[in-house]
Amino acid sequence: MLVARKNKEIIKTQSLDAAVRIMHRCDTLAQASLSSEHIERTYLSNAHAQANKIIEGWISEAQMQSWQDAVGNVWGRYASEDVGAPALIIGSHLDSVVNAGRYDGILGVLLGIELGSFLAKHRVKLPFHLDVVGFCDEEGVRFGATLLGSKALAGKWQPAWMDLTDENGVSLSEAMTEFGLDPSKAIDAKRDPETIRGFLEVHIEQGPLLEKRGLPVGVVTDIAGARRFEFIIEGKAGHSGTVPMFLRNDALLGASFCIQAVEEATKRFDVLATVGQISCEPGAVNVIPGNVNFSLDLRSAKDGVRDRALSWLMNKMRFECQRRGLNIDYIEIHSADAVACDSEWQRLLESAMRDSGVEVNSLASGAGHDAMAMSGYTQMGMLFVRCAEGISHHPAESIMVEDVSVALEVITRAICDKAKVEVPR
Amino acid sequence: MLVARKNKEIIKTQSLDAAVRIMHRCDTLAQASLSSEHIERTYLSNAHAQANKIIEGWISEAQMQSWQDAVGNVWGRYASEDVGAPALIIGSHLDSVVNAGRYDGILGVLLGIELGSFLAKHRVKLPFHLDVVGFCDEEGVRFGATLLGSKALAGKWQPAWMDLTDENGVSLSEAMTEFGLDPSKAIDAKRDPETIRGFLEVHIEQGPLLEKRGLPVGVVTDIAGARRFEFIIEGKAGHSGTVPMFLRNDALLGASFCIQAVEEATKRFDVLATVGQISCEPGAVNVIPGNVNFSLDLRSAKDGVRDRALSWLMNKMRFECQRRGLNIDYIEIHSADAVACDSEWQRLLESAMRDSGVEVNSLASGAGHDAMAMSGYTQMGMLFVRCAEGISHHPAESIMVEDVSVALEVITRAICDKAKVEVPR
Repeated sequence: MLVARKNKEIIKTQSLDAAVRIMHRCDTLAQASLSSEHIERTYLSNAHAQANKIIEGWISEAQMQSWQDAVGNVWGRYASEDVGAPALIIGSHLDSVVNAGRYDGILGVLLGIELGSFLAKHRVKLPFHLDVVGFCDEEGVRFGATLLGSKALAGKWQPAWMDLTDENGVSLSEAMTEFGLDPSKAIDAKRDPETIRGFLEVHIEQGPLLEKRGLPVGVVTDIAGARRFEFIIEGKAGHSGTVPMFLRNDALLGASFCIQAVEEATKRFDVLATVGQISCEPGAVNVIPGNVNFSLDLRSAKDGVRDRALSWLMNKMRFECQRRGLNIDYIEIHSADAVACDSEWQRLLESAMRDSGVEVNSLASGAGHDAMAMSGYTQMGMLFVRCAEGISHHPAESIMVEDVSVALEVITRAICDKAKVEVPR
Repeated sequence: MLVARKNKEIIKTQSLDAAVRIMHRCDTLAQASLSSEHIERTYLSNAHAQANKIIEGWISEAQMQSWQDAVGNVWGRYASEDVGAPALIIGSHLDSVVNAGRYDGILGVLLGIELGSFLAKHRVKLPFHLDVVGFCDEEGVRFGATLLGSKALAGKWQPAWMDLTDENGVSLSEAMTEFGLDPSKAIDAKRDPETIRGFLEVHIEQGPLLEKRGLPVGVVTDIAGARRFEFIIEGKAGHSGTVPMFLRNDALLGASFCIQAVEEATKRFDVLATVGQISCEPGAVNVIPGNVNFSLDLRSAKDGVRDRALSWLMNKMRFECQRRGLNIDYIEIHSADAVACDSEWQRLLESAMRDSGVEVNSLASGAGHDAMAMSGYTQMGMLFVRCAEGISHHPAESIMVEDVSVALEVITRAICDKAKVEVPR
């Protein structure tokens, strides 16, 4: 769905040309896939090698140096004249989920390359190296652990990951060797934080807010923390025709109340809450459910708010289950705290938006990103680009070339501002 | 759970001896199973043949004639001296669900045999033949269609059933041949209703009401009608971290409201309603449910009440789904109208209970029974026997020998009353 875009006047021919190229390159990169039917580009696969090769080609075209690091991240550098200068990193990830769209991750890498190309073309002198990165594994599809590429960079690589296996029983270590990497050197992908000036990531929003606001880009303020649970409700199975309602301990009636309470929690607290999985046993049309399992994904930009919501919800659920003669229990399966984006990056991006004639606006990220792994490692900033209907992780993922152009202009201004140099005309 | 039993004084040594034998025979028949781990006795299986053989042996011991009919029902007759007399049929089914208990169905057949044995022993002269039947398929486990044995008797056998297949692809017709029956003769299992004086079925309650009332047996007034549906709610899948609550069309939030409404319907109308199955897609912890399917089983002894409840519920569901931007649709997968038990049988059974010193009480059957197939064919009556905690279709199915004794005494009195003969002492 194409949404009418505000501020058309700000589009420069230059950035629009680059944006058109980015769109074409997204189409090209979509071919680097494990399947000819859909996009599937997992860590250390042939599609990963293919994508890195294509990206290295484009980096070279942009007059930048290219290299691949010890875990398979691909890099490009528009070098500062000061060889000993620190590096400012811009990028995102190149891997994908199964049956993915063509922009999630990719867009941020290609924008970095265009930015480097533009600065190189205008011989802009930077006080830092501009390093473009294409992270190798953000989605965690193949080995189950996420953010592998960015965590390796930030020195958060875990040796235990080497024993993780894919669905065919191939270990991460074996896959690395087959890819042509030396598993014993994985930790060399870490770069000394003293040599890094910051990290900027552009990513599609994966949500509908920018579209609703009618704006092409937005500054990310926080990346929400998430806690995930599996709830187990135990009641008593029975014959649907013979047990009177007042003698039932129907686990699904209890669960349906709990799911309604999850929604109520989102009205009382500033959280997102989702029950995405549910199963019920014995699971026959004429048997009262004896057991129900369901998941809960709870997110907020503020960990305290999230945890207060959880506590309120747990009380509500327990009370209701008790009333119904049901037992309720849970397992926490994931917990990640919220991460705030660096305030200097937010200021730089807002100022760049203002200079580009784009209405300044900000939003929190509900999804996780490579930028999370940068937390505690270097100053991290993020810019979101509008995507159609908030759809991501799906072939229907769609963005507009005009928005890509705006994003390129905004990051160009922000990087030049950070470098304290004039934006070339 | 053993419940203290009222009216102990009415137990006669004679019927208690017979009840003890019935309990032992239930244990013996439990061995006629497709599995050594659990009870599984499906239509036309080896276990079916084995059970029929055992039953025929017990029928012979009881000085009755035995035979197997054209679909595999097993029969016994305590004959009237009047060769041309009509037959009064008493019995239930011998087949079982998978991992069944040992009383469901069986009990009614064994009580019939003990009744025949008692009448034969006392040479009671009846104006009708007393025919005991062990129906071959009530549960419908193997071929999916239920009440095959009793429908065959009542002339409701469908030729199309011959093409039904089991999970191994064996057709009913093939299974019949292998069992030693001639599929082309299946319709011969029908008996002319002009020659039938009525049908009486004793069955475990499969519900907890008699236990709650502290009573051993109860007269069945109606067999509830059931309608079954599959509901399909369509919303929009999305990322659990990026789509704000107010922009969601979460199919599971809609479904949980609908399930709560199902419960509310049972408070407003005299119905039983159960959602026994639910599934949700895509079904990932971090994805908003786009589609939810769930079942509904709705029962009442009064079809009009059931249908008014359904109409109320449908309106409520539709309104809520519309409000949430969800599409709701349904398929009716089963519909059976309620069947009233014959009033003369109810009167005979109540009178027999009074004479046996058992508090007269009645209840509707929520579950289906062979007696349903008798509707429109012959006068049908049913007596329920208390079972522990209402559990059935499960190895934990449990009844008390004292209750079996009471049931035997009640049906003996009722049959003698129907025959207008004295109960022998």
